[in-house]
Amino acid sequence: MWQLYQFPLCPFSRKIRLLLAEKGEPFELVRESPWQRRDEFIDLNPAGQTPVLVEPQKGVTLIDSGAMAEYFEETIDKAPMIQGTAANRAEIRRLVAWFDDGLYRDVVAPLIEERMRKRLVSRDAPDTRVLRDAMRVANSHLDYLDYLLDHRRWLAGPALSLADLAAAAHLSVADYLGGLDWRGHKQTKDWYAVMKSRPSFRPLLGERMEVISPPAHYDKVDF
Amino acid sequence: MWQLYQFPLCPFSRKIRLLLAEKGEPFELVRESPWQRRDEFIDLNPAGQTPVLVEPQKGVTLIDSGAMAEYFEETIDKAPMIQGTAANRAEIRRLVAWFDDGLYRDVVAPLIEERMRKRLVSRDAPDTRVLRDAMRVANSHLDYLDYLLDHRRWLAGPALSLADLAAAAHLSVADYLGGLDWRGHKQTKDWYAVMKSRPSFRPLLGERMEVISPPAHYDKVDF
Repeated sequence: MWQLYQFPLCPFSRKIRLLLAEKGEPFELVRESPWQRRDEFIDLNPAGQTPVLVEPQKGVTLIDSGAMAEYFEETIDKAPMIQGTAANRAEIRRLVAWFDDGLYRDVVAPLIEERMRKRLVSRDAPDTRVLRDAMRVANSHLDYLDYLLDHRRWLAGPALSLADLAAAAHLSVADYLGGLDWRGHKQTKDWYAVMKSRPSFRPLLGERMEVISPPAHYDKVDF
Repeated sequence: MWQLYQFPLCPFSRKIRLLLAEKGEPFELVRESPWQRRDEFIDLNPAGQTPVLVEPQKGVTLIDSGAMAEYFEETIDKAPMIQGTAANRAEIRRLVAWFDDGLYRDVVAPLIEERMRKRLVSRDAPDTRVLRDAMRVANSHLDYLDYLLDHRRWLAGPALSLADLAAAAHLSVADYLGGLDWRGHKQTKDWYAVMKSRPSFRPLLGERMEVISPPAHYDKVDF
């Protein structure tokens, strides 16, 4: 079985957990705190980042959540998540990059740094200016999702895709860390309620990061 | 024909230029300076980044260099660059992410900021501490390439792949900006000499960014 090296608030690991669950591929979680830079983990992935997937029986190690998503898209027919024409597929991948690069860099990474890493590791106080900026940019990201959902059933088009899984993964971490204000974002809120109700999402929402509690609405489908 | 919005020292645009040239797909360059945040360009790509590819006849717009690479891999059979088993393909994509994320973030982006953007746009002096750090990390990236090439004919395995194009694109920008010291990296230097001699690479090496000159060895295959 696949072993997924991850920590509960890693958005890239969450994306892969959603993908594997949608595809019905079994996996078990291995807790890894990449900030500890454990020697055995650096040997496994010199980039030192989660997620890493290992299948000891097959002798396969997968690194980088983008490479993982393409691997399972190529090897498992069930629940295709990069579908349609080449142009449709490019649009799905554009949005995944938008979330994995932009939303992560502008919103999720600063929230993780200020509200998780500083609390768990360096024990510094969070920088309220950085948090305020991240939450302001989060709002403009939610505006962009509202705009997409005004024109489309799902984020990248008529079908559920990897873009929805990536967006939900990042937003769920931002929401856990209290970084999202859902008021005024009805389209995205309705879409996220549907994502939260999927069986693939339930295990994520039930999990807790040590010391840090999410807001009360975090795991509620009706929020 | 494809129109590629780019500027001469954009490593992601260089990767796509190499890919299109290897595949024999014609394109024309459109100069774009993303730091100017031109309204028409932001309309084209809300992320505001190069490269963007537009094919007016087909009505196709491609955004994000990863999505572009997959698109051309799917639509053009010539010169496949993501080949082999699913595990081989995952290794190619892992290395592309290594260069596009890690090498870019640690080395290429700080060099562009200090030696290009500050000179052309904000007219500040470069921060020598940042430059020294970038060049130190560049050296450890070259060590990693040496290690890969000790075990493999090309970076990701027995065949030329997108990983080679991505690495060469990033290193060429770092080299233009004087950020690489090739001494002690014979394996990578030999590989890069072969990359430089490819017809796909020659147009890149002949091009100049306004105001900024590369070191004398930059465009020489024998360097």
